[in-house]
Amino acid sequence: MGEQSSKPYKPGQPLKVALLGCGTVGTEVVRLLVESHGDLAARIGAPLELAGIAIRRPGRHRDVPVDPDLFTTDAAGLVRRPDVDLVVEVIGGIEPARSLLLAAMDNGASVVTANKALLAADGATLFAAADRNGVDLYYEAAVGGAIPLIRPLRESLAGDRIRRVLGIVNGTTNYILDRMDTSGVSFEEALEEAQALGYAEPDPTADVEGFDAAAKAAILAGLAFHTRVTASDVHREGITQVSATDVASAKAMGCVVKLLAIAELTPDGKRVGVRVHPAMIPRTHPLASVREAYNAVFVESAAAGQLMFYGAGAGGAPTASAVLGDLVTVARNRVRGHRGSGESTYASVEVHPMGDTLTRYHISLDVVDRAGVLASVADVFARHEVSIQTVRQEGRGADAQLVVVTHQATDRALTATVEDLERLEVVRDVSSVMRVEGWGDD
Amino acid sequence: MGEQSSKPYKPGQPLKVALLGCGTVGTEVVRLLVESHGDLAARIGAPLELAGIAIRRPGRHRDVPVDPDLFTTDAAGLVRRPDVDLVVEVIGGIEPARSLLLAAMDNGASVVTANKALLAADGATLFAAADRNGVDLYYEAAVGGAIPLIRPLRESLAGDRIRRVLGIVNGTTNYILDRMDTSGVSFEEALEEAQALGYAEPDPTADVEGFDAAAKAAILAGLAFHTRVTASDVHREGITQVSATDVASAKAMGCVVKLLAIAELTPDGKRVGVRVHPAMIPRTHPLASVREAYNAVFVESAAAGQLMFYGAGAGGAPTASAVLGDLVTVARNRVRGHRGSGESTYASVEVHPMGDTLTRYHISLDVVDRAGVLASVADVFARHEVSIQTVRQEGRGADAQLVVVTHQATDRALTATVEDLERLEVVRDVSSVMRVEGWGDD
Repeated sequence: MGEQSSKPYKPGQPLKVALLGCGTVGTEVVRLLVESHGDLAARIGAPLELAGIAIRRPGRHRDVPVDPDLFTTDAAGLVRRPDVDLVVEVIGGIEPARSLLLAAMDNGASVVTANKALLAADGATLFAAADRNGVDLYYEAAVGGAIPLIRPLRESLAGDRIRRVLGIVNGTTNYILDRMDTSGVSFEEALEEAQALGYAEPDPTADVEGFDAAAKAAILAGLAFHTRVTASDVHREGITQVSATDVASAKAMGCVVKLLAIAELTPDGKRVGVRVHPAMIPRTHPLASVREAYNAVFVESAAAGQLMFYGAGAGGAPTASAVLGDLVTVARNRVRGHRGSGESTYASVEVHPMGDTLTRYHISLDVVDRAGVLASVADVFARHEVSIQTVRQEGRGADAQLVVVTHQATDRALTATVEDLERLEVVRDVSSVMRVEGWGDD
Repeated sequence: MGEQSSKPYKPGQPLKVALLGCGTVGTEVVRLLVESHGDLAARIGAPLELAGIAIRRPGRHRDVPVDPDLFTTDAAGLVRRPDVDLVVEVIGGIEPARSLLLAAMDNGASVVTANKALLAADGATLFAAADRNGVDLYYEAAVGGAIPLIRPLRESLAGDRIRRVLGIVNGTTNYILDRMDTSGVSFEEALEEAQALGYAEPDPTADVEGFDAAAKAAILAGLAFHTRVTASDVHREGITQVSATDVASAKAMGCVVKLLAIAELTPDGKRVGVRVHPAMIPRTHPLASVREAYNAVFVESAAAGQLMFYGAGAGGAPTASAVLGDLVTVARNRVRGHRGSGESTYASVEVHPMGDTLTRYHISLDVVDRAGVLASVADVFARHEVSIQTVRQEGRGADAQLVVVTHQATDRALTATVEDLERLEVVRDVSSVMRVEGWGDD
């Protein structure tokens, strides 16, 4: 691993920055570079100068406060320019972002990226290129928008052992679930409202099916446990199946439903489980107070105990704030002729299969109202060694419903239990199965 | 400013650590150094080795899992040993901590300290010694215990402009105020309970009078605004005057009373106001959900918007986690032969006098029940140009009470208003004056 950056800094010179992409985030990055020029120079020890801005189509960026000659549609040419010291990528997606970042690093530039999809899919290739070229690769904006996560997890907790990370890392789904909780509306109504307000895309799949959260979960898991996790290692369930009834059941239990990204070590510290799914959490849990489109990451570590980092998870200005923070660091490293801490994957813990994951479950069953129903149901749980914590019976006659909350059980045992429950003659329907997280005694 | 540490690292050698103090935090530091020896070596690139542990009196540390020969009562000799690379100070107080840290840095060692009182009183002398000797001085554990604050504020937000920092930075007072809020008990009862549980000292002055929070406020202000603030610059009010009635009034307004450490820039960005006092904040504010003895720091910045960092603000293990995080960083810097980012006080903004500070106020008045009282009271506010947002009248006859909430006003104008109210014949008593913070439109 090279310790020297390949492009030495010439004292007194400005550092030249190439910006790839000029959408919502890119425009804010330019604005901050212009507005905070003096402060940034003081913090870095050298001024930053825009070398060029790569855009897809010319003529659409009249409101960006820079010399129009800086715009170019030749991104590949821009990242290979010999005068470029630092490259900021806010295009998103796998290609051409990957090829451009690789070319930039091979050209000796340090890079800052907000590209969660690329890092979660193929971070290894990028980090290898950074090492090979002795340059920095920073990515604070990829998870949790403006929320500082990477330095706290990697550096502040470097003397501690993180056990579990629970995150609300997708603002769209948090907005939808918060609306369902506060107004009792259905998923569909809350989604429409989120779309009307611009919190959800016209095609909301990436958010509501948990793809966005899964990419971020992979990055968080790698950070927290010094290992490498890709999006395909992440067990993923979205929120489209969360019903108003689930939300009401959660409320009755003193809980709220959140889409959680969870990364946790097995008790022996040898394996890591990474998953994204809706879960009920107690209203007294710090994550329960994360409202609207805000994000937060809750960390449990051996010595520090419980920590939480909260803030805006998306948006042009918040994401640009995180990009600029990284840019100051890589620029300062360049001025001082050294590299930042880089990726750390010395631990190489294995990924834990979802079936082995331990959680509590909340299960709602529509049952026939007949003596002995509870005994039959309890017998199914017992057969799979899933221990019941509470059972609540609601309604009578044709509408009888059983609500079961279990102690911790493996996902495998629970899935087998639910399959057997569905076969049970007295059970009309298993209407909902949801995990419960964040109880004090887990 | 030197960029090279004065003691070059010899590859393959362990880094030698001197520990000053072996109380609650020191014992946990030793435990983590022993337990996480392998992980720490992987993260640093060299193993850490304890060179010695300075204690006041010998023979009292039988439960610390190290060679008893490491203990010494000669702290001054330990920090001057030529083989010591890194010094950790967890003694607290001004002397002998300051002399020992100065001697350690003059001896070429990088230092990690948890000493808020010393940093807030005389940080300038310490940072100057670090610069002169080309060594690192890290202090994450000094504010907010285990909560990562220094890297997020200094590095992650380095491309942004922080406008305001609102912190709950003292766990004892937060525990007391939380108990007053949840059980309606008096300050005295809550304090007794906190003492019984070990959350408050037998002499609680440093906590309940706000001295501890004021030291932390000075450090936070310096960090957030790249300037130097000392504890004596901080306006300080404790919580001993907070009554059960104040807490109930706050509740009636949808607020909760918290002891806040506030550092904020004036709108022109040229001055900084730093203050510690109890304040009412809306229950929807993220800081309102900080319960028991937890700490949190809420940050408002231009681009990132609202951020919050939450966690255990004190205790042996959490504080040791923060110390170890710093130790990994300064050790890694030592191995790589460079320094961390150091202090940054380029901005040198002036400290704003408390009289100029703008806030809202909640004022309770015992008044005679007579026609025209409200007019007389309103006239006093108007004379001082303090604009009233709401007035609520409670009780009748001899117990009539007026509760006034103002729009933003200067502290000077408010103080003058209260003095005139006290002189007013119809006012029996100004029973409580409390600031209100965290409203959306401030």
